[in-house]
Amino acid sequence: MPNQPDGTEIQSVLDDIAIRMAGEADRGEVASYIPELARVPLNRFGIAVAPLHGEPIIAGDAEMPFSIQSISKVFALVVALGHVGASLWRRVGREPSGDPFNSIVQLEFERGKPRNPFINPGAIVVSDVILEHQSDEADPHPVLDLCQRLADAPDITVDEDVFASEVATGDRNRALAYFMLAEGNIRGDATKVTERYFRQCSIEMSCRQLAAATRFLATGGEGADADIAGVTPERVRRLNALMMTCGCYDASGEVAFRIGLPCKSGVGGGLVAIVPGVGSIVAWSPGLDKKGNSVLALKAIEDLAHRLGWSVF
Amino acid sequence: MPNQPDGTEIQSVLDDIAIRMAGEADRGEVASYIPELARVPLNRFGIAVAPLHGEPIIAGDAEMPFSIQSISKVFALVVALGHVGASLWRRVGREPSGDPFNSIVQLEFERGKPRNPFINPGAIVVSDVILEHQSDEADPHPVLDLCQRLADAPDITVDEDVFASEVATGDRNRALAYFMLAEGNIRGDATKVTERYFRQCSIEMSCRQLAAATRFLATGGEGADADIAGVTPERVRRLNALMMTCGCYDASGEVAFRIGLPCKSGVGGGLVAIVPGVGSIVAWSPGLDKKGNSVLALKAIEDLAHRLGWSVF
Amino acid sequence: MPNQPDGTEIQSVLDDIAIRMAGEADRGEVASYIPELARVPLNRFGIAVAPLHGEPIIAGDAEMPFSIQSISKVFALVVALGHVGASLWRRVGREPSGDPFNSIVQLEFERGKPRNPFINPGAIVVSDVILEHQSDEADPHPVLDLCQRLADAPDITVDEDVFASEVATGDRNRALAYFMLAEGNIRGDATKVTERYFRQCSIEMSCRQLAAATRFLATGGEGADADIAGVTPERVRRLNALMMTCGCYDASGEVAFRIGLPCKSGVGGGLVAIVPGVGSIVAWSPGLDKKGNSVLALKAIEDLAHRLGWSVF
Amino acid sequence: MPNQPDGTEIQSVLDDIAIRMAGEADRGEVASYIPELARVPLNRFGIAVAPLHGEPIIAGDAEMPFSIQSISKVFALVVALGHVGASLWRRVGREPSGDPFNSIVQLEFERGKPRNPFINPGAIVVSDVILEHQSDEADPHPVLDLCQRLADAPDITVDEDVFASEVATGDRNRALAYFMLAEGNIRGDATKVTERYFRQCSIEMSCRQLAAATRFLATGGEGADADIAGVTPERVRRLNALMMTCGCYDASGEVAFRIGLPCKSGVGGGLVAIVPGVGSIVAWSPGLDKKGNSVLALKAIEDLAHRLGWSVF
Repeated sequence: MPNQPDGTEIQSVLDDIAIRMAGEADRGEVASYIPELARVPLNRFGIAVAPLHGEPIIAGDAEMPFSIQSISKVFALVVALGHVGASLWRRVGREPSGDPFNSIVQLEFERGKPRNPFINPGAIVVSDVILEHQSDEADPHPVLDLCQRLADAPDITVDEDVFASEVATGDRNRALAYFMLAEGNIRGDATKVTERYFRQCSIEMSCRQLAAATRFLATGGEGADADIAGVTPERVRRLNALMMTCGCYDASGEVAFRIGLPCKSGVGGGLVAIVPGVGSIVAWSPGLDKKGNSVLALKAIEDLAHRLGWSVF
Repeated sequence: MPNQPDGTEIQSVLDDIAIRMAGEADRGEVASYIPELARVPLNRFGIAVAPLHGEPIIAGDAEMPFSIQSISKVFALVVALGHVGASLWRRVGREPSGDPFNSIVQLEFERGKPRNPFINPGAIVVSDVILEHQSDEADPHPVLDLCQRLADAPDITVDEDVFASEVATGDRNRALAYFMLAEGNIRGDATKVTERYFRQCSIEMSCRQLAAATRFLATGGEGADADIAGVTPERVRRLNALMMTCGCYDASGEVAFRIGLPCKSGVGGGLVAIVPGVGSIVAWSPGLDKKGNSVLALKAIEDLAHRLGWSVF
Repeated sequence: MPNQPDGTEIQSVLDDIAIRMAGEADRGEVASYIPELARVPLNRFGIAVAPLHGEPIIAGDAEMPFSIQSISKVFALVVALGHVGASLWRRVGREPSGDPFNSIVQLEFERGKPRNPFINPGAIVVSDVILEHQSDEADPHPVLDLCQRLADAPDITVDEDVFASEVATGDRNRALAYFMLAEGNIRGDATKVTERYFRQCSIEMSCRQLAAATRFLATGGEGADADIAGVTPERVRRLNALMMTCGCYDASGEVAFRIGLPCKSGVGGGLVAIVPGVGSIVAWSPGLDKKGNSVLALKAIEDLAHRLGWSVF
Repeated sequence: MPNQPDGTEIQSVLDDIAIRMAGEADRGEVASYIPELARVPLNRFGIAVAPLHGEPIIAGDAEMPFSIQSISKVFALVVALGHVGASLWRRVGREPSGDPFNSIVQLEFERGKPRNPFINPGAIVVSDVILEHQSDEADPHPVLDLCQRLADAPDITVDEDVFASEVATGDRNRALAYFMLAEGNIRGDATKVTERYFRQCSIEMSCRQLAAATRFLATGGEGADADIAGVTPERVRRLNALMMTCGCYDASGEVAFRIGLPCKSGVGGGLVAIVPGVGSIVAWSPGLDKKGNSVLALKAIEDLAHRLGWSVF
């Protein structure tokens, strides 16, 4: 059961962690498959904690925007649940996918129904659901809009260079989309659906903004903007459960074991962790481990959680 | 963050649940692969809550012994961690296994290292570790001993008929053992190792006993018998994390989503759920769903957790 | 070692087979995934034998055009080998694929290199090779051209309705193309490449035409039109070997076992068998078995080969 | 269609090949998983051709006995077919297995029915069938007996050191046996069945003996000892078909493509090829490629077949 330290104590621990992370030699490798991501300097590190009330507490490069990548899947899921509610789960499962490789293997065995909304095919189905309910005419950027509202930061944008890179290198995601189209689990145009997906992955946010935007996951949904239809206390608990079991690809079990908090990572190097009833944590450093999670963000949040006694278990 | 209701409130909810479960028509099917299990009447249902202090609160058939089956994997893991500590994780992983079928597929791809200690091959490696440190001469029943100590119930026994059934029908588990022997991840005699595994699966406990025996997982390890070497606060948190991500086979994600608590199920129809800082819950009913989890035990614990506001998220 | 019966004997056996096939009750099911194919009447059956020299000998509906579908993969392979020779095998393997499902599983494990040129992803790579060397400007229909030349039948055409159906329902093949594009094994535009592939599948030929067009595989390449660059004696032997091991999807072993001749089937219900040094056989009937091979075409060719002592073994 | 060169021409080509193979630098690696096999000197090479009539023609180390290993699966299949005929195919398939790894994957998907009799699980089922019909009391060595009879060489024996090695290192094969026992496709005692299998793999024969013993596969069954119940012309054709599609593990397609003859290889370095109507070829050299086939035996037989125009296609 998480402790409730005060802001001064948190600030002190964050400052100390930022100093120690600056000295870390083993920083992983920056994602290379998207040229735009590969340019981010390896020596960046930022961290932010957004308590239930008040301003985020930050240290390091916590104001520097980075590509949120797969972390956007959490926001997209909120949007889609707002549109179709629990019927979404007829098209996407809620189980860990198990193997690194089996996104497409699993799709073939399970007739086009992705294992969960946090693997790429699952997120593509979520994009399809959103597109079905919010056409480009109605709202071309519903996920971006939600991020801006949740973070109270209208200046959050899509990095157009990253987006162009995603489109240019997105053949594997297009393969997934066509596969699910063949199985009847994508209903819109495959090109449009994947572009929506690439666009949400290319949103840029800072640790501070991302901590503010994910705080609603720690409050049981309370305090979230009233017009965010997808946010109910039950849904918030369930989003946390999904993050715990599926949030860090095929390292989700390992992350749950080490950190004991619901987490969601992105290949931009960001990592979100939720401390229910206390607040949200975001750490960022662009160097990744072999499973695609940020080496220092994991280390920093593990250290922070350990020092402040934050674990759901 | 879990609520802390008083005993009277819990008793009232348990009584109500027991009445409602008695009237449930859809009770699943009793496991048929072991003849001894198939004989248990489908109409049984029991439930128990062991708060941090004091006696378990019970309802229904909570004093009736049942075969704990895979729930024994939690106790065996405690014993093995007591012997070899974190070095165990060199031989067993900590990730969900993903697919129902892939125990042996995954073993082949990952060269004999099971994905986690709660799938059969992982539990067989755990048995091998225990056998290495506690031979039949030293202690033929270390897992049973732990159950007796934790539940303070020296009369807990192995059901010899179930054990004989397990041995007689255990060829698939022997196949797993020989496969890992070939890969160098089993060191003892395959026959002895699997017999140890079959023996622990055949332990019989009641809901009351099992709730008492798993209470240490809710206390952060405090209060557990001092000579249980495997129990430290950190280990307890990690056992809970493993139960959350891997405790219910390939329905673990679904169970986390619905119940929001670390759980462990067995094909005998038992289900354990841990409410950190509050206590442990055990429900039992022998009818299973297609994934091998008890239909009514899941339903009962989901209902209980919902009514008492028990969720880690 | 195949016998060399005379034309009268062959005619007599073909006539008898046609009569018997007309009376067969178990005719399989017409392919339903393409609406245009589903309309072909189930009671059709044709058979033709093209001896090394002279006119094909025919019986039943042997003059009726049908969709050659996967049989086109043999002709496309000849065209591609003519362009790039043995270097083709750096991009496509020569092994049976094993499982019905594993086209895409195998692609993922083997980094986008299809197992052989007779499964869909392999044929799509072959189309990509042809497109690279014969753009739409140079020759929009190189596979059709080859069929016309080999059969000496300039009236052979693409069925435009079938082609439109293939394009409309081809998402799974597009998924394969994008997957291989992501792995670098498709170089052209995925839409154009798959259209070329759909076009070749939609070629219509009769048993008589197809027997004439595949006769070169029985002659060791001799007698084939001099400007068919892909046809050398060595290549002909190897095409036969590929048909023997991979020509009937995941029933190739079964077909080799039963018939003992190199064969290639298509879901249009056609089946080609080669009797080296003797001639080629084509049978057609639209009803398929579960593995996608024509029930009566298989039965007829098995019977024919048995009665005339035609086997390579 | 294979040519029929005379004995002098064959001898001359064999002599030339033996000289060239002696000078080959790239000889592969000797199988290391069985210590007894690893001791065989890498510089050995032998070759023999057994024409339909008369003595085998030999060159190199063709009189030196080597471990026939998987080549024994052909003889065992003949014995089992003699006992149960075509009903064998209810328990073993006739398709290539596809992937190197999928022996056990495939077993799991296909409920314990091995893909073909030339992969290990298939051969273990064949051993089970033989054991069912010829107990240790009736005949402890039926496969050895057949080899002796076919080669007319009563001095052929089992290498007891190799056999002991096989038993000591055979855990993976025992895993396969237990897996099939669990699925009901092994009926005897797993230990006895695998011992029978290890024993047949440990038979030692020379190229000369093995060529003589496999000659019946080139004669359409004629001339084989009258009391070999499993040998009929139809069965001989089908054995050849199985060797063509499944005889060299997951390189069977490649071998068919390069050599164009039915072949069967063993990890002892032996390779048998059948030229229907002409005779049988055996080459041996202990160094293997990555797929477990002898580098020089493949090269030598490819060269021989090319020079003498031997191909079934």
